[in-house]
Amino acid sequence: MRVLLAAGTTDTALIEGISAAGASPELMAHTPAADAEILAYGEPTRAPVTPVSPTGCPTPAAVTRAVRETVGFDIAIVDAGLAEPTTAPTVGIGDVAPGADVREDEAVSDAGAIFDRAHGYGTSLPDDDLLIGETIPGGTTTALGVLTALGEPIGVSSSLPENPLEHKRRVVDEGLAASDLEPGACAGAPLEAIRAVGDPVQPTVAGVAAGALESGTGVTLAGGTQMIAVAALLRHAGVDAPLSIATTSFVADERGDDLEAACERLDCELTVTDPGFADHERDHVAMNRYCAGEAKEGVAMGGALSLVPDGQMADVRNQFETVCSRLGIDAEQGGQHDDEECGGD
Amino acid sequence: MRVLLAAGTTDTALIEGISAAGASPELMAHTPAADAEILAYGEPTRAPVTPVSPTGCPTPAAVTRAVRETVGFDIAIVDAGLAEPTTAPTVGIGDVAPGADVREDEAVSDAGAIFDRAHGYGTSLPDDDLLIGETIPGGTTTALGVLTALGEPIGVSSSLPENPLEHKRRVVDEGLAASDLEPGACAGAPLEAIRAVGDPVQPTVAGVAAGALESGTGVTLAGGTQMIAVAALLRHAGVDAPLSIATTSFVADERGDDLEAACERLDCELTVTDPGFADHERDHVAMNRYCAGEAKEGVAMGGALSLVPDGQMADVRNQFETVCSRLGIDAEQGGQHDDEECGGD
Repeated sequence: MRVLLAAGTTDTALIEGISAAGASPELMAHTPAADAEILAYGEPTRAPVTPVSPTGCPTPAAVTRAVRETVGFDIAIVDAGLAEPTTAPTVGIGDVAPGADVREDEAVSDAGAIFDRAHGYGTSLPDDDLLIGETIPGGTTTALGVLTALGEPIGVSSSLPENPLEHKRRVVDEGLAASDLEPGACAGAPLEAIRAVGDPVQPTVAGVAAGALESGTGVTLAGGTQMIAVAALLRHAGVDAPLSIATTSFVADERGDDLEAACERLDCELTVTDPGFADHERDHVAMNRYCAGEAKEGVAMGGALSLVPDGQMADVRNQFETVCSRLGIDAEQGGQHDDEECGGD
Repeated sequence: MRVLLAAGTTDTALIEGISAAGASPELMAHTPAADAEILAYGEPTRAPVTPVSPTGCPTPAAVTRAVRETVGFDIAIVDAGLAEPTTAPTVGIGDVAPGADVREDEAVSDAGAIFDRAHGYGTSLPDDDLLIGETIPGGTTTALGVLTALGEPIGVSSSLPENPLEHKRRVVDEGLAASDLEPGACAGAPLEAIRAVGDPVQPTVAGVAAGALESGTGVTLAGGTQMIAVAALLRHAGVDAPLSIATTSFVADERGDDLEAACERLDCELTVTDPGFADHERDHVAMNRYCAGEAKEGVAMGGALSLVPDGQMADVRNQFETVCSRLGIDAEQGGQHDDEECGGD
């Protein structure tokens, strides 16, 4: 089992109110590099920032890393449009540029070429099973973009507790208009959808997944609505091999029945894993923030959690405390505590 | 514990009779990329070649990978002058160009800049312990080059059963002459030595090691005479922190007392590990070729073997058979069997 992380950027993230992945626009460009370094080394090495929200919610990379430190898994990080340098080990699949704002004419001008190169890489991987995650600020908006362009009636999640969904819809509508497209105009033409209103992580993940599936590797898309969007892209590309989606309980809690309906529509098996932050024996700001609906998913978090054997989730939570502490987040930190807690069912 | 691999190339390898690392000059340029892919994925993914000698001796990367598949360790592969593309995940420390032929004026014109960037990366690593290996065809000649330039009376090993040492000495003498240097002229000036007659892997490994040591990470140089050369470079740079060298019994058998004397001279702890290929329960061409003195070391092989807990070496050998088989090397293969066997003491 290998966990592959596609790390990239899109200027769509710079639109006010779109993303929680980074405190300021300048720092947000470093978020995917920091995530990659946290996954690879346990903390940022070259990136000048640790992605933590103002309330003390760390990037999901910290959870994925905690799982890695607990159960161990091999990784590969693909440069899918990084905007800033990183010393994380990255796989190069040729030049992948940061994505443009979806409101431009073209969001990912070379979507087809990226898909083809990623496909070649996916085909070359000898792994039996691949779990593919992403880190790209603004990714839920571009997910909504391609879903709308494909004509798939599926909503998206958010890294913010209050999902600015109407705002995202307006951005996507502007993006489609700028590309002279109606909603649904790209049905059966997934690369057109990405080119118009997607991001560079999408053709990377879709290409690796399609190539891997073709060569007999099992593929799990590790993520929430962004991976639903990739699954839709794959289905519209005619890929009918079995596909799984593994996400967190935080995404499932927000999306409710929509998530299952989307997976059914796209013929994907769905795995939801709850890290049990609500049951943790100590109060910890990072876990409380996840329980309050921040971050929710990303950097293959839900997929990584699905790898944890029964009975080891408490170990993962303890290790998550260690990772948080290494990232400078103490249990008590945060300042903006509120009474929101992880709810039971 | 992380195993870091510096992978690069030098045109010195193209000199007739210098290196066994690759069947032809064209394919040899792909050897470090193939080694990196074998370490990362278990087989070449993008490199068009599997480094195997005409007699059936696979690259030491296959042994290192077998150890990794048995005991598990984290890796980082640094691009230290790769000449061909790879889909192995690599750390970029800025542009590192392939090295020139040591007989040119300058072998590594930007040795100082490479060292500085590698140093910064080494400092940033949070690991407690680092084991640093290399893959660079022609590397024992450039090792002899810098040792001679530093005035260190230490010989070098070879990936060929019969070490073409006199040939290497002539190449190094030509290289020093081309740089207007006498043997020993670079004592205390290690970067000058690399610039004149070294290779790009040397300032990368020395820089990462120096940076890691400065930030409190324990460093083991994983290799034979090439790592002796790096240890000499570090000592001449004034680095006096504890340093270990871990190599294979194949290098130790060839070098005899020289190896211990060199380690003593450079104040390095020496660990020699025997993979027990002579004791393996089945006859296997790859193990026989190592026993006959081919390859001997490289791609952190000796260091990786030093990580194998007591009682697990048989598992490593069995896994090595699996890796060989994946690389297309059957136990019986080779054609040029001879009666040489692994000798006891």
